[in-house]
Amino acid sequence: MVAIDFWYDFGSPNAYLAHRVIPELEARLGVAFAYRPALLGGLFKMTGNSSPVDAYRNVPHKLAYERLEFQRFIERYGISDFIMNPHFPINTLQMMRGAVAASELELAPAYVDAVFNGMWTRQRQMGDAEILAETLEEAGLPARQIFELSQAPHVKSRLLEETQKLYAKGAFGIPTFFVGDEIYFGKDKLRDVEESFLRQTRESSLSR
Amino acid sequence: MVAIDFWYDFGSPNAYLAHRVIPELEARLGVAFAYRPALLGGLFKMTGNSSPVDAYRNVPHKLAYERLEFQRFIERYGISDFIMNPHFPINTLQMMRGAVAASELELAPAYVDAVFNGMWTRQRQMGDAEILAETLEEAGLPARQIFELSQAPHVKSRLLEETQKLYAKGAFGIPTFFVGDEIYFGKDKLRDVEESFLRQTRESSLSR
Repeated sequence: MVAIDFWYDFGSPNAYLAHRVIPELEARLGVAFAYRPALLGGLFKMTGNSSPVDAYRNVPHKLAYERLEFQRFIERYGISDFIMNPHFPINTLQMMRGAVAASELELAPAYVDAVFNGMWTRQRQMGDAEILAETLEEAGLPARQIFELSQAPHVKSRLLEETQKLYAKGAFGIPTFFVGDEIYFGKDKLRDVEESFLRQTRESSLSR
Repeated sequence: MVAIDFWYDFGSPNAYLAHRVIPELEARLGVAFAYRPALLGGLFKMTGNSSPVDAYRNVPHKLAYERLEFQRFIERYGISDFIMNPHFPINTLQMMRGAVAASELELAPAYVDAVFNGMWTRQRQMGDAEILAETLEEAGLPARQIFELSQAPHVKSRLLEETQKLYAKGAFGIPTFFVGDEIYFGKDKLRDVEESFLRQTRESSLSR
């Protein structure tokens, strides 16, 4: 089976949009995407990259086009509930450590949904530990247990190691997808991700 | 009929790749793309934008990914003859003025093919007026007539006006496509160009 990795950080609205489209891709392709948390800020430091908003601060036409493509994506996939977060940018370190902890507790899917929704449909200041805890509890998740585990040294270092792994694979931003060993950057590459999966699946069945 | 404009500069290898794919799109959609010359250097000055190679000079992972996507495009569309031009970057002002002149002489398609090929399949230093003239003659084009017309004040100012028009429409780079009033940037948006044309054509037939 060809694996598809989805590298995300809750701070990326583009990762949120990808997250919203992934279920229909999973259903169509018959494969589960592996959700891989990594720190976008750390990846930017390692690579020298920055967000489009920073990189194109002085190119208003480019930024207007990025917003247009964002809106087009929303319309293409019928995503009706996205709202820009007024607290942006938000420090995602605690949320991301929590993702590693939730994964160890086998609660990752519910955790990822709750946190992405808090960030990009509910306009919450999710960098605030109390608001994060409240959001998790509302979703029926054991906030205290997740928080405690997220402070464990092995969880903290796991998140850094994952970020370094993503860097070592050639990435420079989020969302990044890997289909087998093939890298695709950005939500706009989801069609390429799908085609690559189908092609690699075909090739691997032929070579058996 | 919904119009599709293709804004190009011979200095852009991405515009060359788009140019190679346009004929199959035209055949499939039953529409001719309108080729619109504009100065990429001028557009960069107006918008504050720069080429990816400049903007991401210090982000090697990003540049490596751009090269990968370039190669993927070439493979997707079976473009076997592209060769990077060793004289790059090349000043395209004379070539672009010539495009306006060739258009007045109703020789645009042959001129565009000859110059794009000189740039991106034949490794020629096309910024050199003699090499440009030679390339046009080899293609059976009246090099002297095109060159003389390209020096006419109205041709020179036409090229600047076109570049300003492209800027005023919100563009920031090349290749840029307009499908009716809808802007699409980059060769990777050709599938979106196609979908937009089909959608707008459907909508305009319904509203009649």
